[in-house]
Amino acid sequence: MKIAILGGDGFCGWPTALHLSDQGHEVHIIDNLSRRWIDTELGVQSLTPMDSIQERCRIWKQETGKVIGFHLLDLAKEYERLRQWLAEEAPDAIVHFAEQRAAPYSMKSDRHKVYTVNNNVNATHNLLTAMVETGIDAHLVHLGTMGVYGYSSVGAPIPEGYLDVEIDTPTGKKGQEILYPTRPGSVYHMTKSLDQILFQFYAQNDGLRITDLHQGIVWGTHTDQTRRHPQLINRFDYDGDYGTVLNRFLIQAAIGYPLTVHGTGGQTRAFIHLQDTVRCVELALSDAPAAGARVKIFNQMTETHRVRDLAEMVAKMTGAEIAFLPNPRKEAAENDLIVKNDNFLALGLNPITLEEGLLDEVVEVARKFAHRIDRKRVPAVSAWTKDIAGRVETDPEGKRLKSVS
Amino acid sequence: MKIAILGGDGFCGWPTALHLSDQGHEVHIIDNLSRRWIDTELGVQSLTPMDSIQERCRIWKQETGKVIGFHLLDLAKEYERLRQWLAEEAPDAIVHFAEQRAAPYSMKSDRHKVYTVNNNVNATHNLLTAMVETGIDAHLVHLGTMGVYGYSSVGAPIPEGYLDVEIDTPTGKKGQEILYPTRPGSVYHMTKSLDQILFQFYAQNDGLRITDLHQGIVWGTHTDQTRRHPQLINRFDYDGDYGTVLNRFLIQAAIGYPLTVHGTGGQTRAFIHLQDTVRCVELALSDAPAAGARVKIFNQMTETHRVRDLAEMVAKMTGAEIAFLPNPRKEAAENDLIVKNDNFLALGLNPITLEEGLLDEVVEVARKFAHRIDRKRVPAVSAWTKDIAGRVETDPEGKRLKSVS
Repeated sequence: MKIAILGGDGFCGWPTALHLSDQGHEVHIIDNLSRRWIDTELGVQSLTPMDSIQERCRIWKQETGKVIGFHLLDLAKEYERLRQWLAEEAPDAIVHFAEQRAAPYSMKSDRHKVYTVNNNVNATHNLLTAMVETGIDAHLVHLGTMGVYGYSSVGAPIPEGYLDVEIDTPTGKKGQEILYPTRPGSVYHMTKSLDQILFQFYAQNDGLRITDLHQGIVWGTHTDQTRRHPQLINRFDYDGDYGTVLNRFLIQAAIGYPLTVHGTGGQTRAFIHLQDTVRCVELALSDAPAAGARVKIFNQMTETHRVRDLAEMVAKMTGAEIAFLPNPRKEAAENDLIVKNDNFLALGLNPITLEEGLLDEVVEVARKFAHRIDRKRVPAVSAWTKDIAGRVETDPEGKRLKSVS
Repeated sequence: MKIAILGGDGFCGWPTALHLSDQGHEVHIIDNLSRRWIDTELGVQSLTPMDSIQERCRIWKQETGKVIGFHLLDLAKEYERLRQWLAEEAPDAIVHFAEQRAAPYSMKSDRHKVYTVNNNVNATHNLLTAMVETGIDAHLVHLGTMGVYGYSSVGAPIPEGYLDVEIDTPTGKKGQEILYPTRPGSVYHMTKSLDQILFQFYAQNDGLRITDLHQGIVWGTHTDQTRRHPQLINRFDYDGDYGTVLNRFLIQAAIGYPLTVHGTGGQTRAFIHLQDTVRCVELALSDAPAAGARVKIFNQMTETHRVRDLAEMVAKMTGAEIAFLPNPRKEAAENDLIVKNDNFLALGLNPITLEEGLLDEVVEVARKFAHRIDRKRVPAVSAWTKDIAGRVETDPEGKRLKSVS
């Protein structure tokens, strides 16, 4: 297949591009490189030393003989160029990672809120409009998030996208299938909830074939392909905005920083290893919905854990201490989470578990690159509301962290 | 109260501004005048001769002694200026009409789809962000639409915003209140469905006080205030994009053009007179939700009718013929519609019915200004999909209209 990977320079996009190229697909990366610009803005960098996208593609060709195309294009701002590219190349499938993807970054200031909504909504909508306008028959696979549902459910397992409800009518109760209701907890998560409405409309009105992957929190760094050459290595974020919880624990352990648990650590979240992410995208591509069918929604996760249980797991493995800090997010202190992932299991996913993969990460990544860590960037500083910002104060040296409330 | 009216130069915005000014409130109109630019783009104009917004405000002051401020500002593009204005003026309430509001315009071409999403989502989100950032404690009243729910319901009355559902859990069925599920039928309606998610988030995360008015199709031209001087007259759209169904029938009757019913005319829609719209906004302003409360959602409509029944009503009153044409929209051919509007009735709304108001419109507006009608602009030409566009062909002279399928 000819596959366009939008956001193919990012944390999930790059290993997905390599994985699909390795399988013999013709892969084109479209990216505006905004994630690298945000590194510059925040004064942070990937723990792993990361080459330019052009250099990465050159190394991949050198190692495998396979070509990955790179096209510098801003989906949200350059609708006309996007449409032209799609019309000329007519890809068979499009994998869409091209959205600002950090909840803390989306809550950093009003400017960051405005940017996240403007960028994410226009990127997704421009893509959908251009697909209709060019008349290409591509299957769109989008990376969404489990986070659209919020984390204060009534304790029912989260189904894959849809919910059967009963509605009172004058002639008795009638069943109806609806999109599983969302309750996003950050501006970032909100944009993914908006995406869901966009997909529903374009599948219904124009028959676009769309799969939306509601992904858990990704952990891990390497895939089979990124291991092939040091310059193919994936990015690894550990800062308070872009670092996901488990990667941050690993880094904190590696430099003797306490594992920072926000609130009680009773938040339960869904997780998936990066290797399983790329495999899930492959499986989703092989199972496209029919034209005119409803959007296919998969929960892309493999296990759920409480944050404090994760911290204890890493502490046991590394000897690190755990520090409980005030929570900068507005969220339930404790929640249960049961998630169905029957679709991917049925398609043949064989998950990598935390238990088997975690030690590799500690050795291969966290300790190996510990000398590159900037301790000042470890604390999480983006607060969800002005009230919370007033109550939480973080020492920029990253040594003491306290609540002033 | 000090009230900002965003989109106060438009069809609903202008009479709302006059109504609230007349009641003694300090009214400020914020508008980018985009609706006038779209008239220019489409080569159409209001049936009623409409002065500039500055001139309208001058006449209002001359007639009543009351001042309405006008501020040229683009909500979607000028976030910084919006925030500054809100910080300086700190209005007590904000009425938000400032979105592109025609479904056919939103489906006209890819450019119009992209514009509608970009404009409407950014306008609403910029406003919400600026309200949080400035910390003003204003009540936001937004004009939404009944159309977010689509028109293929299971026959249950549409409640006011929320739905109680039962979800299967491991410990039995549990009740949960969710936003009434949307199923928008055009890009325009889709943006109003996105707005609903934005409101839910900002009410929950930041305690903004928000009322969302899900309005039916507005008919009528005059209110008590617009009648006071010829230069205060409201706009009246009759073209295929911006003219709403009943206003179009009136104009067609006035010039001896057949009343154009698309499809079977079995589409049932909700209606409200413009005078009741301004009264509803007043009532909504008087009944603000508490900070931290869920978004208050009212259905702002007073009666429902089948489109073909409306055509027959106008035909009977005027002697016009009815022409059944292919439907350029993708929608159910026939639907029932039952809508609850208990909230506004409880607040004291006393609706104007079609039966009592319709003849005034024929005499006061349609016949009076019939000489200004451009017949070429009467047909509806925006098709919902490329397939439909291929099947529906409209004679630009507006004399013959046929299906070529």
